[in-house]
Amino acid sequence: MKTIAILGYGTVGSGVVEIIGNSNRRSGSGIDISGILVRNACKYKGHSHFKSVTENFKDVLTDDVDIVVEAIGGLHPAYDYVRRSLESKKHVVTANKDLIAEHGAELLEIAKSNGVELRFEASVGGGIPILKSVSDCLAGNSIESVTAILNGTTNFILTKMEEEEMQYDEALKLAQELGFAEADPSSDVLGLDAARKLSILSTLAFQRKLDWKEIETKGINAVDSSDFRYAGLNGCSIKLLAVSRLLADGVYASVSPVIVKKGSQLGRIRNEYNAILVEGDAVGDVLFTGKGAGMMPTASAVFADIADIMNNRKVKAETFDYDDAFVKTQWENEAKWMLRIRTGNRIGIMKDLTGRFSNCSILAGECGEHGDEVAAFVRAGSEAEIDCFEDSLSQEYDVRDFRKMMVLEQ
Amino acid sequence: MKTIAILGYGTVGSGVVEIIGNSNRRSGSGIDISGILVRNACKYKGHSHFKSVTENFKDVLTDDVDIVVEAIGGLHPAYDYVRRSLESKKHVVTANKDLIAEHGAELLEIAKSNGVELRFEASVGGGIPILKSVSDCLAGNSIESVTAILNGTTNFILTKMEEEEMQYDEALKLAQELGFAEADPSSDVLGLDAARKLSILSTLAFQRKLDWKEIETKGINAVDSSDFRYAGLNGCSIKLLAVSRLLADGVYASVSPVIVKKGSQLGRIRNEYNAILVEGDAVGDVLFTGKGAGMMPTASAVFADIADIMNNRKVKAETFDYDDAFVKTQWENEAKWMLRIRTGNRIGIMKDLTGRFSNCSILAGECGEHGDEVAAFVRAGSEAEIDCFEDSLSQEYDVRDFRKMMVLEQ
Repeated sequence: MKTIAILGYGTVGSGVVEIIGNSNRRSGSGIDISGILVRNACKYKGHSHFKSVTENFKDVLTDDVDIVVEAIGGLHPAYDYVRRSLESKKHVVTANKDLIAEHGAELLEIAKSNGVELRFEASVGGGIPILKSVSDCLAGNSIESVTAILNGTTNFILTKMEEEEMQYDEALKLAQELGFAEADPSSDVLGLDAARKLSILSTLAFQRKLDWKEIETKGINAVDSSDFRYAGLNGCSIKLLAVSRLLADGVYASVSPVIVKKGSQLGRIRNEYNAILVEGDAVGDVLFTGKGAGMMPTASAVFADIADIMNNRKVKAETFDYDDAFVKTQWENEAKWMLRIRTGNRIGIMKDLTGRFSNCSILAGECGEHGDEVAAFVRAGSEAEIDCFEDSLSQEYDVRDFRKMMVLEQ
Repeated sequence: MKTIAILGYGTVGSGVVEIIGNSNRRSGSGIDISGILVRNACKYKGHSHFKSVTENFKDVLTDDVDIVVEAIGGLHPAYDYVRRSLESKKHVVTANKDLIAEHGAELLEIAKSNGVELRFEASVGGGIPILKSVSDCLAGNSIESVTAILNGTTNFILTKMEEEEMQYDEALKLAQELGFAEADPSSDVLGLDAARKLSILSTLAFQRKLDWKEIETKGINAVDSSDFRYAGLNGCSIKLLAVSRLLADGVYASVSPVIVKKGSQLGRIRNEYNAILVEGDAVGDVLFTGKGAGMMPTASAVFADIADIMNNRKVKAETFDYDDAFVKTQWENEAKWMLRIRTGNRIGIMKDLTGRFSNCSILAGECGEHGDEVAAFVRAGSEAEIDCFEDSLSQEYDVRDFRKMMVLEQ
């Protein structure tokens, strides 16, 4: 028998209450919900859990509580409540990636010094059991890379843009109407949400502390229908990929729209689904796919953490107590890139492209919305080579816009 | 510091030795290999672990050993050694699906009564962390179904038959040459290996003991190039699928060649890869993909079990101590089927097909290798309806052969 307090009774909180009810019924797991912290208790009159509802944090942190589930989201007041719960020697389970990405190391340290656990499986990949898999199940591996679709909202928007030829604004509006995107979608569409998740996942995978703010992050807000058309000419699609690679001298980490083959493992992940491809030196590549968000998938992951604590199962990575990773934001290896250059001198740019890149295919029939664009696929030895090319073009020509997008050739 | 004895020094055994060496070097996991049981010690002269090698089981079961890794495979002498190890209060980790499918319940009981653990993550899905995911990470779910490619050998053969238009015998020979298939491939190609794995996975997923011998099992040895051609006409491929579904009054379980869409989650799994699609009531569908066999992927899973035991992490499902499942071998729901009927009366059969199934598409231009075949896709309310149709045809016509293959419409 364990007693649980739940902070927040929104989507995640009510999913957790439901799943605890199911589990008690099915297998007599014997979990008692002693208190639920809400902002406005009146809203829950007549509700079956009304007697547990309170507006005061102190009311839920009673002596008999073993585990606190934080389901408020965001940094404040979640940070304060989690810290105080841990200091009161309560185990904490959270789905809050903002909190863990920002304060994970500190909170895990507080948990450790108070002899309790802080667990956060639901913070990355929703219902997909990815953190435990990386920490425990792949323990015999040196993890070499993570390549992932970690944000369901942007994947939904990109899917609609590709399959139904919607404009970005239109697809975003639909995502908001369907509840996949929040009123302020900036954290999702700018790639910040994916960067936070990537930092948590990569910290565990590489055992190096990765600061999410150091990750090169580019959102999907500038992706347009021409990007999809050009990618489509090569049998490719566009996905917002979170990528990290363990290097000899650091960790490469980025979140950006990337061109991927339509039929590939990541290219075929549609709508709000997430997918995480992990490469280990022993296991090879393992792919995990599932719903990355939503009430019940998230609650499923929260419950797994609750069950682990109840069964006294500790995860390997109890702390983020690793050396800081040296984060590299530039891709240093050979890769294929799509370039889109708006210019007053298309002929000159085309000449320079073919002169500079031995492996270059220009989409000669395409000149963009304004009739002044050159689009091409080129192979370059490094990202720096592309940037250097951009500099040299800007000196020679009237370059109105220069865009690059990496092509993942798997 | 833990001391480990390894039984068997073949592919899996030597992979485990290598991964333990890597782990000791990387993170100082402090694992000592005290003994390795082999059939012929002379073979290992000059080998770095020669001093640990012995031909006598009693020599490896010393007092200081904490964990025994069984990497012999097959039932005998593995069963005897595992039992004696557990009775000597040693934890046991095994990759042996034959052993667990046949004697899992008994051995888990012996482990429990001796206060030690028997773990077998590597027995299903090779390096894919599927058993722990089902037992622990999806604990908040009622698992509704498992649909999986669990045998890499047959998936390799089917891939070659489809993509390179090889005949079955030719593809099997190639698999043997490349080391994907054994000299006696019957356990793989007849579907027995997949059935054993499905029984282990489904027992944990549904918490009902599933006897692998009760699973309806059909191999790939009768799949021919016409099957692939007919499937291809519908944009489909053929996979050996292990399927189980929790029903109100039992568990449906089967291993058989199934027609799947080429671009679908399971349709695009190629060569020796495995994939497991698990459907839970909370999490929805989660897909796990990776290498299902081979030295290092299997050793990766064995090592995860070793690490869990070292860190004193217990899995939820320590026993197979569940009620026996009532296994149903007939599909009781609506489904699409491919039928191939060899007959002296093609016109009559075609008339009966269209008369019997309102949803029926006959491949009118196809008449098979012997010119006497009718091939069709039909939709039926249950498998029994198909079998009943077969009976009625046999009474009316000269039916030389009747084959059915289910179509998975996901």
